[in-house]
Amino acid sequence: MQTLLLNADDVDENARMDRVIDAVRGAFTAYERGNAKMPAKSYIDLPEYDGDFRSMPAYLDVREADTAEETADGEGWDAAGIKWVNAHPNNPADHGLPTVMGTMIYSDPETAFPLAILDGTTLTMKRTGAAAAVATDHLAVPDATSLGIVGAGVQSYTQLEAIAEVRDVEEVVVSDLDEERVADFIDAFGDRFDVRAGSVSEAGHCDILSTVTPVEDPIVGPGDVGEHTHVNAMGADAAGKHELADELLLDATIVIDDREQCTHSGEINVPYAAGTLTDDDIYGEIGEIVVGARSGRAGVDAGGNGPATGGAGVTGVTVFDSTGLAIQDVAAARVVYEQADEADNGSPFDLLGLAE
Amino acid sequence: MQTLLLNADDVDENARMDRVIDAVRGAFTAYERGNAKMPAKSYIDLPEYDGDFRSMPAYLDVREADTAEETADGEGWDAAGIKWVNAHPNNPADHGLPTVMGTMIYSDPETAFPLAILDGTTLTMKRTGAAAAVATDHLAVPDATSLGIVGAGVQSYTQLEAIAEVRDVEEVVVSDLDEERVADFIDAFGDRFDVRAGSVSEAGHCDILSTVTPVEDPIVGPGDVGEHTHVNAMGADAAGKHELADELLLDATIVIDDREQCTHSGEINVPYAAGTLTDDDIYGEIGEIVVGARSGRAGVDAGGNGPATGGAGVTGVTVFDSTGLAIQDVAAARVVYEQADEADNGSPFDLLGLAE
Repeated sequence: MQTLLLNADDVDENARMDRVIDAVRGAFTAYERGNAKMPAKSYIDLPEYDGDFRSMPAYLDVREADTAEETADGEGWDAAGIKWVNAHPNNPADHGLPTVMGTMIYSDPETAFPLAILDGTTLTMKRTGAAAAVATDHLAVPDATSLGIVGAGVQSYTQLEAIAEVRDVEEVVVSDLDEERVADFIDAFGDRFDVRAGSVSEAGHCDILSTVTPVEDPIVGPGDVGEHTHVNAMGADAAGKHELADELLLDATIVIDDREQCTHSGEINVPYAAGTLTDDDIYGEIGEIVVGARSGRAGVDAGGNGPATGGAGVTGVTVFDSTGLAIQDVAAARVVYEQADEADNGSPFDLLGLAE
Repeated sequence: MQTLLLNADDVDENARMDRVIDAVRGAFTAYERGNAKMPAKSYIDLPEYDGDFRSMPAYLDVREADTAEETADGEGWDAAGIKWVNAHPNNPADHGLPTVMGTMIYSDPETAFPLAILDGTTLTMKRTGAAAAVATDHLAVPDATSLGIVGAGVQSYTQLEAIAEVRDVEEVVVSDLDEERVADFIDAFGDRFDVRAGSVSEAGHCDILSTVTPVEDPIVGPGDVGEHTHVNAMGADAAGKHELADELLLDATIVIDDREQCTHSGEINVPYAAGTLTDDDIYGEIGEIVVGARSGRAGVDAGGNGPATGGAGVTGVTVFDSTGLAIQDVAAARVVYEQADEADNGSPFDLLGLAE
């Protein structure tokens, strides 16, 4: 019995986005139904290096009869694992290394055998894109064809890849102060989509907007979005960070991934801490929408994931505050592992000395 | 830049026990001085599989001038990492797998780059032996020559290996109901030590006793130990487990590795929960003894790790309640990584896709 090593390329190759989206939808479902175990992220702060480590363990069980994954696969699954990840903002300048690096251990919950060790950096991008896609699927207008991206860094690519799986994206407006990043993004997607550079406001007036920046002062104001734009606020991942102006948030229907994480480190953390935004301003968690306990966008069916509530549905501007959950990593790791195992990809390694 | 994969054999080969003991002593020192960061172990209980996962992240800094490691190396170090480990007691019978399997990610704290991924199972045995050796060094009589072992399972081997580094062990008495285990143990060490099978009481009347069993009903009574025996109680790792009778514990000088862990899952957890044993019965933490804030055994100097307190020192029976700390894993991982890196052992792997 060997552990499958899956490097950055292996993860990229085997993270089939449609399946990752299904798996992440399944994870939100399991979490909402109480079929996930996810201890709070634990942090080790290292101020001397201006960095931190985070450990993100989780178990999830999507064997319940009517989950999304069940629908897709015909049978359910459970999975466990941990991601060990960091944020060291000085890495690029001081060490030529990424700010964020992740290592994921994916384990069989029945025996705890480490089935795979994966590049957690690539995995994070994939599952983050997938989370935006799940939210977009339930909250964007059904006939959305345009996507704005604010911030053309590494996380922006999987936003487009994933969202294009749930809506017929034709036009993409990308906004970033760094022209090289914008050019790279256009290079990467110009053959599949009508991609152009634009202002924040041009990006924000698309049907869907994903913000993927690490800013501490909001860069998207209330006038920068359309009347029915669905916004995926992906960037904020620590206290003090937010991308959207308070007025925009307060006028929007806000969906969060996890109350604890969002109020402490998500898009809403700053106005929440200030008391400007309260629990009453939060419409619900993504899991509630995925299982049909709350309506998504008006005109969007429940996506085959359970009974629609039959309500009129949400209208106007919607915001998904995504902080990233450990269950997303485990769900995405399962997709990559299963796919790689089937395709004989990756490098088997007898880490524990248990082969034969 | 690649990640060094260190399998079971690599860990075994590169965990030079004298250095692991030094590093673990350094870890206890750092923890006592507030130079370690160790979030509480977080558990994922899976009752449906009769198992659990535990995540054990830690950072430690032994760069302060007078730590043990500084003395040994001439300079200090800091280190970070996480061990992901489980306990699935049905694994051997149901799956032919070990009850406990661990995977360790060892990271550079300055950048968070994963320097190594190690077999955490072998690492756990090494660092657990090393913890017993540190305690024995400070708490056993200086001229100890005999060691008793109760429980001849996988963890017993490193007890002897490690303790023989700090005392001139000549005679070893091993006690286990399983005769094959006893024979295997004697086979393994018969050429280096005078090893024989014996009763629990014969083992307990040695100068040093290590108990390494998973029992829930104590198997070592107050009459089973000598007048000055130092006992390393290594087995208890969960609520409800204990190896030593309450009377033995209450008459002994008790040293723990960590108050939180010991009172919840260590040797003292059962009488502590019952109120039979209270905080007043705990002499101190191993870190306090290592740094010289509390006396060790009478006649034992502070081991070069700081000023001796000059007190008369502890006499009679002593007990070290070891639950195992994440900082021990990180300290041991550092030794293995440094040694393997120097010797060109292990398998470099470009997990994160950062090798140019």
